[in-house]
Parts: sequence; structure tokens; C-alpha cells
Amino acid sequence: MANNKKYILGITAGDPAGIGMEVALKALNHREIYEYCVPILIGDKTVAEDALEMTDLPLKVRCVGTPEEALIPLAGNQNECGTVNLLDMQLLGKRNTGEPSWDYGTISTAAGEAAFRYVEKAIALAMEKHIDAIVTAPINKEAINMAGHHYAGHTEILADLSETKEYAMILVCGKLRVIHVTSHVSLKAAADLITMPRVLSVIRLAHQGLKQLGFGVLNKKAGGEPRIAVAGFNPHASEGGLFGDEEERAIIPAVEEARAEGIDVTGPLPPDTVFVKALGGQFDAVVAMYHDQGHIPLKLIGFELGGQHSRVSGINCTLGLPIIRTSVDHGTAFDKAGKNCSSEQSMLEAIIAAYTMAENKNIQ
Amino acid sequence: MANNKKYILGITAGDPAGIGMEVALKALNHREIYEYCVPILIGDKTVAEDALEMTDLPLKVRCVGTPEEALIPLAGNQNECGTVNLLDMQLLGKRNTGEPSWDYGTISTAAGEAAFRYVEKAIALAMEKHIDAIVTAPINKEAINMAGHHYAGHTEILADLSETKEYAMILVCGKLRVIHVTSHVSLKAAADLITMPRVLSVIRLAHQGLKQLGFGVLNKKAGGEPRIAVAGFNPHASEGGLFGDEEERAIIPAVEEARAEGIDVTGPLPPDTVFVKALGGQFDAVVAMYHDQGHIPLKLIGFELGGQHSRVSGINCTLGLPIIRTSVDHGTAFDKAGKNCSSEQSMLEAIIAAYTMAENKNIQ
Repeated sequence: MANNKKYILGITAGDPAGIGMEVALKALNHREIYEYCVPILIGDKTVAEDALEMTDLPLKVRCVGTPEEALIPLAGNQNECGTVNLLDMQLLGKRNTGEPSWDYGTISTAAGEAAFRYVEKAIALAMEKHIDAIVTAPINKEAINMAGHHYAGHTEILADLSETKEYAMILVCGKLRVIHVTSHVSLKAAADLITMPRVLSVIRLAHQGLKQLGFGVLNKKAGGEPRIAVAGFNPHASEGGLFGDEEERAIIPAVEEARAEGIDVTGPLPPDTVFVKALGGQFDAVVAMYHDQGHIPLKLIGFELGGQHSRVSGINCTLGLPIIRTSVDHGTAFDKAGKNCSSEQSMLEAIIAAYTMAENKNIQ
Repeated sequence: MANNKKYILGITAGDPAGIGMEVALKALNHREIYEYCVPILIGDKTVAEDALEMTDLPLKVRCVGTPEEALIPLAGNQNECGTVNLLDMQLLGKRNTGEPSWDYGTISTAAGEAAFRYVEKAIALAMEKHIDAIVTAPINKEAINMAGHHYAGHTEILADLSETKEYAMILVCGKLRVIHVTSHVSLKAAADLITMPRVLSVIRLAHQGLKQLGFGVLNKKAGGEPRIAVAGFNPHASEGGLFGDEEERAIIPAVEEARAEGIDVTGPLPPDTVFVKALGGQFDAVVAMYHDQGHIPLKLIGFELGGQHSRVSGINCTLGLPIIRTSVDHGTAFDKAGKNCSSEQSMLEAIIAAYTMAENKNIQ
């Protein structure tokens, strides 16, 4: 960080029945992050204490009423790393015995309600600029819906509560970064959603998001601009109109307009080789046209890098919001919850991405 | 091979301007293949001699008039490996000086005509059972079209000349094997081509093709049956009809029918994880619904295994033909032709696949 400013991050603890609190606390035991940020956990003290006991981490909890309280220097021989600032939402009792009760691996209305309230609180704090960025641990879609919050996931909550219409997710796994034009719709519907304005909007979001993530900023030799590849929609990117018209109708005009705006963007490129090129270092990110076009390579990279029984960690960032939000790329992992067997790697990377984006927020 | 029978393979030399003859001769310098097959190169003596001079391989050419002549034992101290049986098609003169002339890296009508005639001859010999299988080196689409043979590639020539209506390609790269339901059509058109009969036909072709390739045959512990995964068409395989109807309308009924026929088939599975599962060893092959669904993972595997500046070799086999045909998975590589810098690995694997399929031809 150039200016020695420390960014205040709100880290939501996720569904208490999952691994969210565990990976958040494990990440907060990494001394190096405290040089760049003041992390504040948004969750319940009961859940945090349970996770501390389970993990046996050398951490103490300091409850803060506001994010600003976390900036008050610690007394005596207390260290920043070692003291976890917690905004105690006081929504849950002790595991199994308290009221409302909760348990690891058990889907419940109480846990879903709490998980939703953590996110809602974080969004409000970010919108009011009390925190510089949000980092989210996983929530359970079924649980938040049981609690009456009818959203498909974090992204929809964030877009709704921040009143954002045009947004996109950038998914990062290893050296591959992918941003999607369409996602959870049928392939036929995706074809119709691929319009020139939408593709252009996603290219712009990718450009701005990559700059915030440090691409182009750090990579001066590439002229300070992130290099974006745009995948075609059809095989061979339609081979000059032979297979489909989405390229000619929407993608080519969007790429041309973005280029006219000064964005370093190439495409549409054949979808089966564009990811290989990005992994080879030719591009900083790929704009993918539909869900599986991007998710097939992302999952394979995770598998190849992580080995057969493991996976490499990745992160997601929602772009286009008025606030900064990064996320782990894994789910609640109810089957692993309460067992102290989950890795904090993805959470750690999401925290680093969050303060990097906060640092580069106003970059043009 | 169980029965010690040696299979006669017709290896077409491909476009003389490319690397076909070079990789074929290099592959024929591998002693181990002669235990299982009698390879016959179908090409021009002028081209073979040029490649032998360029590569400095310790090989002699024996011209044969018919495949059966190749079975005549060699005289004196000649070895099988060391003597290349060549069906000299006498279509081309010496490089640059003969008539018709040809040169490395130069697209021409003469080279296209020759490349087409090699394939045509191989198909006729296979249809008449003079050879047990065809292995093809790459041809150039533009060159064969310049010569008046209007085909998109080998597969279309093979289907046409053998009067085959229902066929499919299985693509092999590393541990990943993929067979496509649709290929060079727009994604919207692909959606309409995904019918229950077509998906069922491709599952059956995959089943039979995998058995011929030795899956299930060798893998007795899996009950002697190849294990086939079928990918969905839509994100999350439509998540129960939420995103598109191709799964319910075509894929699910096809999988059910195939299973009723005794085929070990699973699906439709979410497209973004099915390839990871296959690579992890859960399946012997994946039935992909459209071009990029299969080609994105195949290209990535080649890249990941082969490293940034290399690639892992793969092969293709056309299934559904009345004859056996395997192929290298690379192109003519005009830029590398005549430089003795091309690897024979893919050709070698295609030869091994061809005699394996010949051995298992009548397996049920």
C-alpha cells in the first residue's frame, strides 16, 4: 500500500452452521494482513467463542459497538493480531443450549436469519462509509429463505440493498479470472441476453474491477491497463458468422466501443482457446458469455492445481456496486463444520483482495 | 493382444506440405508397435524419401502394390522395424523440382489432391477388408477444397464414402475422453439438435467405442463396462427444469433408455463439474452436448499437462463407421513442416488406439 492507510473491512461470519466463522478466525490469525487493514468480524459472540474453543486459536475477542471503536489502540501488551474486533449482533444463543439455538451442520431459520442480518449490517455500514469494504463468508440459500429473505444468494442481496442494476461477478482461481455476461439462465435465454449494451457494460466492469484488483496498476509494462479477452458465444466465435449471430450482433460492436473508450480488450476469441491464452499470460481476465463457458475452466483449474483430492482456493468479487465486496469461493460446507478441518486460504485471499480494491478504489 | 494376430493398419500420410509424413515415419521407427501391427503408409514415395532425408531416420522404404504384400517376410537381415511398407500412390513429383511439384508449408491443389486420394484409398481398402484400420495424418481443408473435394475434413469424407449417417468423434487428451452430441453449429442450433434419439445414439457410440478402446475390457473391477457420464446442456444441468428444457426433453429420456439397455451411464450432470469428476477417475468418458463444452476442458488439459509452451498429445477416433479410424489431434502445422521439429507422440498413440480397436472390434 502506498499511503500507509489501513482500510476497515467488515467480515461477515456467514451461516453459523457452516465453516464461515472458523475460516474467518483462522484468516484473522495471519499477522501480515494487519499491516494493511483493520478487520471487524460481523457476527455473534456466542458463535465466535465456540469456534475459538474448537480451533484453539491464540485469539481474544474484543466486542466493538461501531467500526470506529476498532480504531482505538489496544491497551498494554495486546497485539493487533491476537485481538479480533467483533461487532456482536447478539442474535444467537450458545450452540445447542442457548436461545435461539444453532448447531454445526444443521440448517435452521435462526442461523439463516443471523447470516442475513450480518450481511445487511455490513452493507449498511459500507453504504454509510463506516467500513471500506465487505468480505463475506458463505451463507445457505435455503436457510435465508426459511428466514423469509427471498434471495438467490449474496449477490442479489447486495444488488437489492444497494439499489444496483448493472453488476457482474469476477471469479478468480489461480491465474484465471473470469467475468460473466450471463449466469443462471438456460443457454437459449443466455443467447437473447447477450446484447451490445450488456457486453459493453461487463467489459467496463471488468476493466474497472481489474484496475481495483491491481492489474494494470502494478503491471506497468503493459501500459498500466488490464488486458481483457472477450470470448465468443458460438464455436470458433462463429467463424465469421458461420455459426450464429451473437458475435456480429452484440459482441463485436461492444468490443469496438470499449476499445474506442481506451480499454485494452481483444475479441471475440474462440471460446475453446481463450482460457488457455489467459492462463498463458496473454490476458488478465476473460469475459465469458455464459455460466459453463467460465465455470468449466475455473473448476478444472481448481482441480488441476489442487490435485485430485484437494482444490486450489479462489475468490469472487461483485463489480458494479457502490461498495466493495469480495467473497470466498466455497460454500458453507455443512459436512465439515465444527471439525476444525477447513482451510482459511480463500478467506485470506478475499481479505487481501478487499483491501487492495479499497486502496485502488478511485483509480481511473 | 491376446491372440497374437497382427493388424494391418493403413496410415495416410496427410498433406505433403504439412508434418504428416514426418510424424508418421518417426512413429514407424518405434519398434514396440510391430509386435501388434503391420503398418502400411499410404502416400507418395517422393514425399517419404524427402522426409527420410530431412529426419535422418534409420528407415528404408519397401514399396508394396497391395497391403497383402506387406505380409511377405523380409529377406536376409532386414527387420520389420526399419523397413517401412509404402503404398506408393505416385501422385507427386520431387519437392520443388518434380511434376506435380509441392513444398513444405505451401498450400497447393496438387498436395490437396494427393492428401484426399490417400484417404480415399485407405477407406476403399478398409471397406474391402484389406486393412483392419485407418490412421490419418492431418490434411488441409483449403487444399482439398482447392482440389475440388468439398468436405469440411476427414470425418465428413469418411462418413460420405462409407455411407454412414450416425457417427460421432471421441476426443482423447490425457485422462479425459469426450464425445460430442453436436459440434460445428451455433449454440442456438445445437439446442434444437439435442434430441432423445441423437443423445441415445451418441451414448451407444461412446459405449461401443470405449469398449473397443479397451475400457471395461481391461477394467474388470468396474464390471467390464465403460462408465459414461452425460453432461447437461444448461447451467447446473437445468437444476430440475429451472434453466431450460433440453435435459427433461431429450437427455434424461436418452440416459434412461441407455441404462435400460445395460449401459453404465450417469447424468445429466452439471457441465461445470462433470469433467473434474471424469479426470478424477469416476468416469471413462463424458458425453458433451456442444462443441465448447467439450473442447474447453480438452484444450485446458492439454495446456495444463503440457505446460505453457508445450501441449500434451491427444487423439481422435471416429465412431459409428463400418471401419476403424483413428487420428492425430493436431493439424498440418505448415509453419513447422520440413524442419524436423515435430513430435510423433500423437501419431504413435493413434496407431496404438487403432490396433487396440481392431483387436476389440467384435466385442459386445
